[in-house]
Amino acid sequence: MIIRDKPNAFKLFFIIKGSVVPTIAPQILFSALVGLFVYFLYSNFPDWLPILTVTPFILLGVTLSIFLGFRNSASYERWWEARKLWGQLIIDTRSLARQVQTYAWAKDRSDPKPFNENNDENNDYALECKEHQKRFVLLAISFSHALRHHLRGTEYNNDVHRFLSADDSSHLKSTRHKPNFILNLMGDELRHMLQKEFIGEISARNLEERLTSLSTILAACERIHNTPLPFAYNLLLHRTAYIYCFCLPFGLVTSLGIMTPFVTAIIAYTFFGLDALGEELEDPFGTSAHDLALTTMSYNIEINLLETLNEENLPDPIQPDGFYHT
Amino acid sequence: MIIRDKPNAFKLFFIIKGSVVPTIAPQILFSALVGLFVYFLYSNFPDWLPILTVTPFILLGVTLSIFLGFRNSASYERWWEARKLWGQLIIDTRSLARQVQTYAWAKDRSDPKPFNENNDENNDYALECKEHQKRFVLLAISFSHALRHHLRGTEYNNDVHRFLSADDSSHLKSTRHKPNFILNLMGDELRHMLQKEFIGEISARNLEERLTSLSTILAACERIHNTPLPFAYNLLLHRTAYIYCFCLPFGLVTSLGIMTPFVTAIIAYTFFGLDALGEELEDPFGTSAHDLALTTMSYNIEINLLETLNEENLPDPIQPDGFYHT
Amino acid sequence: MIIRDKPNAFKLFFIIKGSVVPTIAPQILFSALVGLFVYFLYSNFPDWLPILTVTPFILLGVTLSIFLGFRNSASYERWWEARKLWGQLIIDTRSLARQVQTYAWAKDRSDPKPFNENNDENNDYALECKEHQKRFVLLAISFSHALRHHLRGTEYNNDVHRFLSADDSSHLKSTRHKPNFILNLMGDELRHMLQKEFIGEISARNLEERLTSLSTILAACERIHNTPLPFAYNLLLHRTAYIYCFCLPFGLVTSLGIMTPFVTAIIAYTFFGLDALGEELEDPFGTSAHDLALTTMSYNIEINLLETLNEENLPDPIQPDGFYHT
Amino acid sequence: MIIRDKPNAFKLFFIIKGSVVPTIAPQILFSALVGLFVYFLYSNFPDWLPILTVTPFILLGVTLSIFLGFRNSASYERWWEARKLWGQLIIDTRSLARQVQTYAWAKDRSDPKPFNENNDENNDYALECKEHQKRFVLLAISFSHALRHHLRGTEYNNDVHRFLSADDSSHLKSTRHKPNFILNLMGDELRHMLQKEFIGEISARNLEERLTSLSTILAACERIHNTPLPFAYNLLLHRTAYIYCFCLPFGLVTSLGIMTPFVTAIIAYTFFGLDALGEELEDPFGTSAHDLALTTMSYNIEINLLETLNEENLPDPIQPDGFYHT
Amino acid sequence: MIIRDKPNAFKLFFIIKGSVVPTIAPQILFSALVGLFVYFLYSNFPDWLPILTVTPFILLGVTLSIFLGFRNSASYERWWEARKLWGQLIIDTRSLARQVQTYAWAKDRSDPKPFNENNDENNDYALECKEHQKRFVLLAISFSHALRHHLRGTEYNNDVHRFLSADDSSHLKSTRHKPNFILNLMGDELRHMLQKEFIGEISARNLEERLTSLSTILAACERIHNTPLPFAYNLLLHRTAYIYCFCLPFGLVTSLGIMTPFVTAIIAYTFFGLDALGEELEDPFGTSAHDLALTTMSYNIEINLLETLNEENLPDPIQPDGFYHT
Repeated sequence: MIIRDKPNAFKLFFIIKGSVVPTIAPQILFSALVGLFVYFLYSNFPDWLPILTVTPFILLGVTLSIFLGFRNSASYERWWEARKLWGQLIIDTRSLARQVQTYAWAKDRSDPKPFNENNDENNDYALECKEHQKRFVLLAISFSHALRHHLRGTEYNNDVHRFLSADDSSHLKSTRHKPNFILNLMGDELRHMLQKEFIGEISARNLEERLTSLSTILAACERIHNTPLPFAYNLLLHRTAYIYCFCLPFGLVTSLGIMTPFVTAIIAYTFFGLDALGEELEDPFGTSAHDLALTTMSYNIEINLLETLNEENLPDPIQPDGFYHT
Repeated sequence: MIIRDKPNAFKLFFIIKGSVVPTIAPQILFSALVGLFVYFLYSNFPDWLPILTVTPFILLGVTLSIFLGFRNSASYERWWEARKLWGQLIIDTRSLARQVQTYAWAKDRSDPKPFNENNDENNDYALECKEHQKRFVLLAISFSHALRHHLRGTEYNNDVHRFLSADDSSHLKSTRHKPNFILNLMGDELRHMLQKEFIGEISARNLEERLTSLSTILAACERIHNTPLPFAYNLLLHRTAYIYCFCLPFGLVTSLGIMTPFVTAIIAYTFFGLDALGEELEDPFGTSAHDLALTTMSYNIEINLLETLNEENLPDPIQPDGFYHT
Repeated sequence: MIIRDKPNAFKLFFIIKGSVVPTIAPQILFSALVGLFVYFLYSNFPDWLPILTVTPFILLGVTLSIFLGFRNSASYERWWEARKLWGQLIIDTRSLARQVQTYAWAKDRSDPKPFNENNDENNDYALECKEHQKRFVLLAISFSHALRHHLRGTEYNNDVHRFLSADDSSHLKSTRHKPNFILNLMGDELRHMLQKEFIGEISARNLEERLTSLSTILAACERIHNTPLPFAYNLLLHRTAYIYCFCLPFGLVTSLGIMTPFVTAIIAYTFFGLDALGEELEDPFGTSAHDLALTTMSYNIEINLLETLNEENLPDPIQPDGFYHT
Repeated sequence: MIIRDKPNAFKLFFIIKGSVVPTIAPQILFSALVGLFVYFLYSNFPDWLPILTVTPFILLGVTLSIFLGFRNSASYERWWEARKLWGQLIIDTRSLARQVQTYAWAKDRSDPKPFNENNDENNDYALECKEHQKRFVLLAISFSHALRHHLRGTEYNNDVHRFLSADDSSHLKSTRHKPNFILNLMGDELRHMLQKEFIGEISARNLEERLTSLSTILAACERIHNTPLPFAYNLLLHRTAYIYCFCLPFGLVTSLGIMTPFVTAIIAYTFFGLDALGEELEDPFGTSAHDLALTTMSYNIEINLLETLNEENLPDPIQPDGFYHT
Repeated sequence: MIIRDKPNAFKLFFIIKGSVVPTIAPQILFSALVGLFVYFLYSNFPDWLPILTVTPFILLGVTLSIFLGFRNSASYERWWEARKLWGQLIIDTRSLARQVQTYAWAKDRSDPKPFNENNDENNDYALECKEHQKRFVLLAISFSHALRHHLRGTEYNNDVHRFLSADDSSHLKSTRHKPNFILNLMGDELRHMLQKEFIGEISARNLEERLTSLSTILAACERIHNTPLPFAYNLLLHRTAYIYCFCLPFGLVTSLGIMTPFVTAIIAYTFFGLDALGEELEDPFGTSAHDLALTTMSYNIEINLLETLNEENLPDPIQPDGFYHT
């Protein structure tokens, strides 16, 4: 997505990057040409021109505006919900990393001797527990990358595989639903920690709530990705917007004369622009200028979680390419 | 439902499949004919024509647009809530399958010998636990199909019955509220796992939360299915839209002349189209072009859950018929 | 409430049942009469008529539409929230019935002999547990009926009392807040099950969540019932709508002539209709045509819960009277 | 707040109580006087009058209506959220009273003898438990009254103090954040019940959830009370509404003549009325005609909770003063 | 943010502080100058002036208003959500302080002697528990200040560091994600309390829920701060608003004459004002006139929590500078 400051009033009119203009330039141009042609007819062959006044455009314009508003609200809510879901992913992975370190410990619970943090670190049992903690956190990083690939339809590359054991990694390749498989691996890891009594049943509820939440995020992202707005809405709005803008010159020419193409182009810009924006926000998981910066966010999760594990050599955050975050 | 890409500007005008046009073609045509008739009167017998200006249509048009907008928002929210509920169904069934494998195990909890996954698999006690796990997951698949039949009013066929024991299957036939009965079977299964101590009371809370959530999904889908928008709203909107469109030619003919039928048809298309769409989205559980793809989703649940159980010979996902997902 | 299919275009204009027309007929008629009177003045004594143009009605019409839209949204949300609360009541009572059977059992938890379902059924201890389960479920049915009477202000008849013990039934009569009293009885029942160790503290949390949810439903329904929209909104909207419709003929008569009463009536129908509908949905717990079918729903709860208890001789569902569900 | 039935069409125009008219009468009158003055100028010195048409008012009127609508929605949502919070207060205090009686009992948990309710009542230990239950419930009543005083800025009178011990009562006086102090007292009480083993750690979670919810209600009410809508919105809307209404006569006088003051007054009534209502609902915790009936609600909580404790001599509910509930 | 009472009608027009006027004064002035220039052309060289009527402005004005309304709603919701998140921060820190004192105690749970509060206070074990409680609460204060610095990009000064141990304080400086680090410190503290058995696993769930909630607040604030509305919306709205206001005089001059600059300025004030306000509310964490009073709120948290710890010498609340709260 494009993130940049508000430009000043003059520059505003010359920004192309991040604008919707390139997408809709053909339609705007076509509207203007219709306007020019209508003006030409009107100036030279006024009798040939069908009679239209501005009235139908007022009647239709209000309705069209209200429904473009409705469609844009619905699309924006999908976009914002998607962002909230990825925000929740950040929350859950961070909390999960914190919780596994708070609640999974190697100390024998029936051991009568008082707790001693240093003792705890030295024996094999404690090291095994640390190993489980780490594996659990790495699976969470792997899940974040996998979710990105799942939603964007890109290949599951090393981002995902380098945090998995060789065995899990090869299993993953033959699995149909890959992010769900990683969640099941996390469930297995949790079961092992329970069975080895590194964590009690009560504290395991905290980690379980995170896993359930990751599962919710996965399915909710799939919902937004797979279920567009009802197709007939888009069809109806596109058709009405097209008819409106292409007929508009016939209604304006008698009062506006030579200004007709100019005014038509401005109104076409507004309507087509809002229509195009509503459509682009509908599926926010792509890599276009208004889509969410999934790559940046999943690498941030990786950095946050590795830092929580006290890893050194953290990777650098993804830098935007110009104003463009992917 | 219809899922297809945005067509280009030219093709846009000739798409019928997934459009609302076939539903409202008679009304549009009738409006245009009224327009033609009014033009005929106006051209030949201007004195016979009742006097109308465009003013009442501006006054009424704004109100009608705002309330069509309100109705469409309400219908869309029902449709989207229904989709969220089925998304939640996907989440809960997946989580349930993961959780029953994480928390139900055969290991004797008081057994002092350390946990050993391989040992655990070989004895009868462990096999019995696996059996319970599997039965629980199959009941969840059965519930998903049953919910579809419940909402669509279709027959409970083998989709539902093949995942049940012969006994439960015959009980199901004589039960009034079938999906609720399957939920009660899942409750029984959970009770058996508790009583045989395959699962502890604390971990059982995780599964219980899934059952409560399935119950919530069931009743919320019933709410959307059984409680339409207040009938008087539909009546008021239909009546106003009809009166508006059929009277419109009387207001337009003096200024638009021969273009009257054309303009009337376009405005009628917009109003009737939005009205029809709002109505179609109200109950999203049918099989029309804008209804949710319940069949695809319930079969996807079946595939996901069988994969989690490590079953082989997974069925193929349902393929859309053209752009049409049921 | 009225539930009926969309009638065809012709029948649409002659439906009275479920329409808001009877409520607002006097106002519409009065507007039309004002229109007729204004036309009479205009035709015969044009000099006596105060000068009005259509402009103020356009200015006021937009504002009025937007605020009628706001009021209708708010009222509809109250209505839909009320329906959701009753949907939640259905969920909670069903879940409660399932849960009490899943988690309350007679088996001595410290008993070393393996679980045996048949043994469990035969002794007195098991029978006492069954008795508690049943009483708990019957209290939930009683609560559903009590909530209906509480919201509608009707008498607490046998619907409520036949599910209570004689003792509780007589206590209920002298209690001020009756539904809350039944909730407290359910709390007592749960305490007895806990004290007799039919249910563990952990599993009791599941039932407790249901009781808290029933308490939430009760207070939320009271909120909707007792707190109307701010009175001044209704006053302002009524006044503006009345002034608007009664003055409208003065603005229309110069351009519409004899059509004035007809157009005034249509616009009055739309404004008064939306105003009346917004007002009717405000308190959705009555028994008018647009109120919720509380009787049907509470009897459905009764049937569902008795079926879960394996009771025979279930009562039949409430049949609508025509299209009219109470 | 004012609660009264819809008056009939005639009375409607003469209601003052609960109307917003008294608040905005000066502005309406001033608008009408401007109208009269403009008409006087127009009739006598038409050349002195600045030229204005109705066009700018149409352009501005739509924008103003949409933003008044936005502001009213936002204010109404604050008002309704405030009502929901107090509804939640009712829920939580009732549930808390029920739960403390369900889960706190005097029976020694390690005692092998079967539960016997009558035994339980007679010994000192049981009486001490009852005492704790009662103190806990009285603190909840005290909190409800304290919240009202906190939000209204009124003095913490006997309503609050008579439910506290002498010691707590004197502590309260020197505390800065009084409702939070009462919550901490409830936490202390819960700790004592835990330490004396009247309640188990698991069941204490139920009470803890209530305390957390009370804390949520407190801070959410503070949020609504302390954070008005951004001041610049009010400023912008006021200014535009004032300019609009005071300039309106210049735009109307050429077409409406002597009717100008009348029409200006009606439009000013609508705009100023909606503006004033939006502003009054912003902080719903005062004692004006549209504010919430906090006194009634907190006394109802007192009655409900005392009834749950089987207290006799319940106070009577607060009666409204006319239609006016405080 | 600015908090002040509604000024009276006269003063209203002269308030600058808290108004959006200074921000948009250049654009308003420029519009008025365009208006003046157009009037000059129109009066002197009418043939040179391009022909424009008011029609395109009506068509465009409605669309622009609806989309400015949509944008303002979205921005306001972000602003209000941000305020809710900080309200939640207040709730969670208060609850956390209460809970750690309710659930963490020094009493040996297996000790058979009855609970005695005074005994409990005197031994070392009890003092160590008190120490942990206090450290936990101080970390919560530190987190509140850290969140403010994190969102405003200001330096982590003594506000944060004085509540940390010297060791943690130096660690904090070298950490990338500082607020998350403090959350991890709280997790460590909780682990120590669990390991030393000051708190049971069940009661620790209460504190864990608070930590998860703090984590949620952190990530949600980051979401609002880092993800502006899609840039293309702002671009489209700015451009349309600029074109609209700068072209408006060409449409108004024929009917309004010398009043053109005045009317243009008023309409420009409304559109540019709403546009600017929507933009300012988008990121509510700054220190401008409409941003949230984070400093006041985080110091209030400090005071509340220190009071709960029975600290004396509480700092004074932050006083606003004029009407200006930071």
